[in-house]
Amino acid sequence: MSATTDLPPRRGPAGQGLPDDVLAELRGIVGTAHVLTSDGDVEPFSRDATPLFRARPDAVVLPATTAEVSAVLTLATRRGVPVVPRGAGSNLSAATLAEQGGIVLVLTRMNRVLEVSSAELLAVVQAGTTTATLGDTAAAQGLLYAPDPGSRTVSTVAGNVAMCAGGLRGLKYGVTRNYVLGLEAVLPTGEVIRTGGRLWKDVAGYDLTRLLTGSEGTLAVITEITVALLPLPRTSGTGVAYFGTLADAGRAVDQIISDGVLPATLEFLDRRCINAVEDFAKLGLDRDAGALLLFGDDGAPDVVTGSLRRMADTCQAVGARDVTLARDIAESDALLAARRCSLPALARLAPITMLEDVTVPRPKLAEMVDRIDAIATRNDVVCATFGHAGDGNLHPTIVFDPTDGDARVRAEAAFDEVFRTAMALGGTITGEHGVGAAKRPWLAERLGADQIALLRRLKQAFDPAGILNPGKLGS
Amino acid sequence: MSATTDLPPRRGPAGQGLPDDVLAELRGIVGTAHVLTSDGDVEPFSRDATPLFRARPDAVVLPATTAEVSAVLTLATRRGVPVVPRGAGSNLSAATLAEQGGIVLVLTRMNRVLEVSSAELLAVVQAGTTTATLGDTAAAQGLLYAPDPGSRTVSTVAGNVAMCAGGLRGLKYGVTRNYVLGLEAVLPTGEVIRTGGRLWKDVAGYDLTRLLTGSEGTLAVITEITVALLPLPRTSGTGVAYFGTLADAGRAVDQIISDGVLPATLEFLDRRCINAVEDFAKLGLDRDAGALLLFGDDGAPDVVTGSLRRMADTCQAVGARDVTLARDIAESDALLAARRCSLPALARLAPITMLEDVTVPRPKLAEMVDRIDAIATRNDVVCATFGHAGDGNLHPTIVFDPTDGDARVRAEAAFDEVFRTAMALGGTITGEHGVGAAKRPWLAERLGADQIALLRRLKQAFDPAGILNPGKLGS
Repeated sequence: MSATTDLPPRRGPAGQGLPDDVLAELRGIVGTAHVLTSDGDVEPFSRDATPLFRARPDAVVLPATTAEVSAVLTLATRRGVPVVPRGAGSNLSAATLAEQGGIVLVLTRMNRVLEVSSAELLAVVQAGTTTATLGDTAAAQGLLYAPDPGSRTVSTVAGNVAMCAGGLRGLKYGVTRNYVLGLEAVLPTGEVIRTGGRLWKDVAGYDLTRLLTGSEGTLAVITEITVALLPLPRTSGTGVAYFGTLADAGRAVDQIISDGVLPATLEFLDRRCINAVEDFAKLGLDRDAGALLLFGDDGAPDVVTGSLRRMADTCQAVGARDVTLARDIAESDALLAARRCSLPALARLAPITMLEDVTVPRPKLAEMVDRIDAIATRNDVVCATFGHAGDGNLHPTIVFDPTDGDARVRAEAAFDEVFRTAMALGGTITGEHGVGAAKRPWLAERLGADQIALLRRLKQAFDPAGILNPGKLGS
Repeated sequence: MSATTDLPPRRGPAGQGLPDDVLAELRGIVGTAHVLTSDGDVEPFSRDATPLFRARPDAVVLPATTAEVSAVLTLATRRGVPVVPRGAGSNLSAATLAEQGGIVLVLTRMNRVLEVSSAELLAVVQAGTTTATLGDTAAAQGLLYAPDPGSRTVSTVAGNVAMCAGGLRGLKYGVTRNYVLGLEAVLPTGEVIRTGGRLWKDVAGYDLTRLLTGSEGTLAVITEITVALLPLPRTSGTGVAYFGTLADAGRAVDQIISDGVLPATLEFLDRRCINAVEDFAKLGLDRDAGALLLFGDDGAPDVVTGSLRRMADTCQAVGARDVTLARDIAESDALLAARRCSLPALARLAPITMLEDVTVPRPKLAEMVDRIDAIATRNDVVCATFGHAGDGNLHPTIVFDPTDGDARVRAEAAFDEVFRTAMALGGTITGEHGVGAAKRPWLAERLGADQIALLRRLKQAFDPAGILNPGKLGS
């Protein structure tokens, strides 16, 4: 989502290269064509969507079957070779970089939708199926795959599960974790396990399905996923409201939820974001507003009409400058465009776009944005914030020019303050992008030493040789 | 829910008694009045709601604070004393019996609702708060705590979390796991950790919140729970349909769900169950029907009316003998009474009531009930089945007189076949009651040797001395 740069990698240089016999064994497992080692071939796998992070793997391996994944992992554990599982590499937390060298294991060849069942309301897909393919295949049968991360057109389902991807519908529909019913996964030592299954209710054993969800490729390699689907909502609708201040928008959000509406969409843009979007896309947004609030719902037509009307009334009651309801899908899409092009609009402002991801309790949203603005001013950085108002998930975004003196240092200092502020307000350092290498320095402060020690013991229970995505969660 | 009996305990006799210095230290931690050791005092804690299982603990300890829980666990780990955490003891899988002696740690003194927030849609409660208290306190603020296990009037929230309790609303609302946002828990080695928090979106670290949910008191002692709440539905409605066969009812269920309705209630009773309920409660049920299907929904009035009408039409279309919609809450309650009194009605038939709990994929529901009937006939046992048609969760219930020769052996043989049949149909040995000691013998067949070995390693990562609920999950 952001361009990589010519900056040097932030951490560890490339690995020392794999021994010839390991490479030969890898070629024997997946076929010579599916083991990449040349500079040109591995370059795309030396970065993900996180700016400023880069690490060259010794080899990129693309298995076609679960058995091949198992054979690669067995070899890796035996020889102590790091393995970093990867789907599309669209994550924003440097979660799929081989900072200790070794193998990047790319699951994109395993990309078949194995089943969609409207009777059982579920789908079974291979790891490398894209989220959009799953969503489109389900929709063709009148079914909804609810999680909708921003990267859904390219991201893989296993990647979504590994990161517990979020999206715009979190408040009403939950996140990826709420839709994973079962997994096939390969342990670092090669065993293939099946967790959960096709059932909504199944309490036989520890909940490994949920433990693997969000484990960021550090515990096992997910090869197949069974997800829950919902009936496709019959209709949807969208509205937009402008407020003088973000505090006003925050009051509207609190009031909407206290009134008993759990809308499908409740997104905000701050003033800087509104102006960047308007510069970029000329949508006719109100440049003088302190905040823009997008609200939407889906379901039965009467319910959607009623819920949009109530939300519009609430916005008006707390003093919105202007409230508009879309009359049709085209108008809905036009309203949603403001949110959708926030990131590209901000990315135009400078060569480097650092998109961050913190969550605070919903009533603290406006206070958090105010404090982010103060932090940005104090550190002399350009920062705009948008995000998911319904679940308190904010994406403060700093843009800078890396050739501009210590701009990067100032950006990093600002984010350090942002993370600590979020925690001080009862929030967290990452709502949906993951910890990866990018947030690892703040994890101990968030979880405490006792929980970090427990994470290490859990990691060891799965991965005794420590080969799976080393340096990340559980390290 | 079922009476215990005078049968000898199925496994291990009482422990050998705790050393005097351990008892003295326990009394120092929680106060003398809160350490019970006499036969009379510990008797109620020698059994839970599971018939045929009984085990006398050496001591029952009732802490009042998290610090006391931590001190007890630290002592227990140091001295190698088994500790079995317990709430109300309403579980049906012998999950809270001290089969290896030691301490039953009862959390019922820690029973305060600490917070209900309509702005944040959450509540924070201490471990021993009853599910009904949580539900009532939330409802008083217009909020819904969605999980509704049958034992909710007595069960504790921490017990629900430890067992990942289900209930009647699973299909539409999910189970306990879907509503746990954060936990305070004490590790067996005494450390107090906080997992998750107040946020819908938080991916910092492994998902310990969900790992502890359903871990049946084998990994940590849960002391405080933060749960998500929903806006209270504005209205609800219920209907009932009779079918000639369970296969017809199953087709209706499949069709309802394929039509895009996810009802709040979709419960079934088989013929034997209908007749037992009618004998017991004289509700005017159709004794000749092969199956009774209760359907219900909640939400906005128009939606509920529409969804009940659609479900009624579907039942009629697949050949229901009779379909009735309740006209008001009183009629709804009367219809629901048939389901609510299934268990007491069956329990009247014989001294011992073994209520079981398997789940199969929803389209296999009717086949599973037919196979249960065949198994019952083959083993010469009286078995009636009711359950949650929406999520494929069945409760086959065998009643017998323990003085009747080998009745118990036949009942156990029948259930062994039932569990294996559920697994053969792609189902599981427990949908919502848990593994406990009761299902432990079938767990390896369900999960496979590799996953059982992994469960053991996870258990060890939490509980190096193996003191917490030994012999259960992870052992």
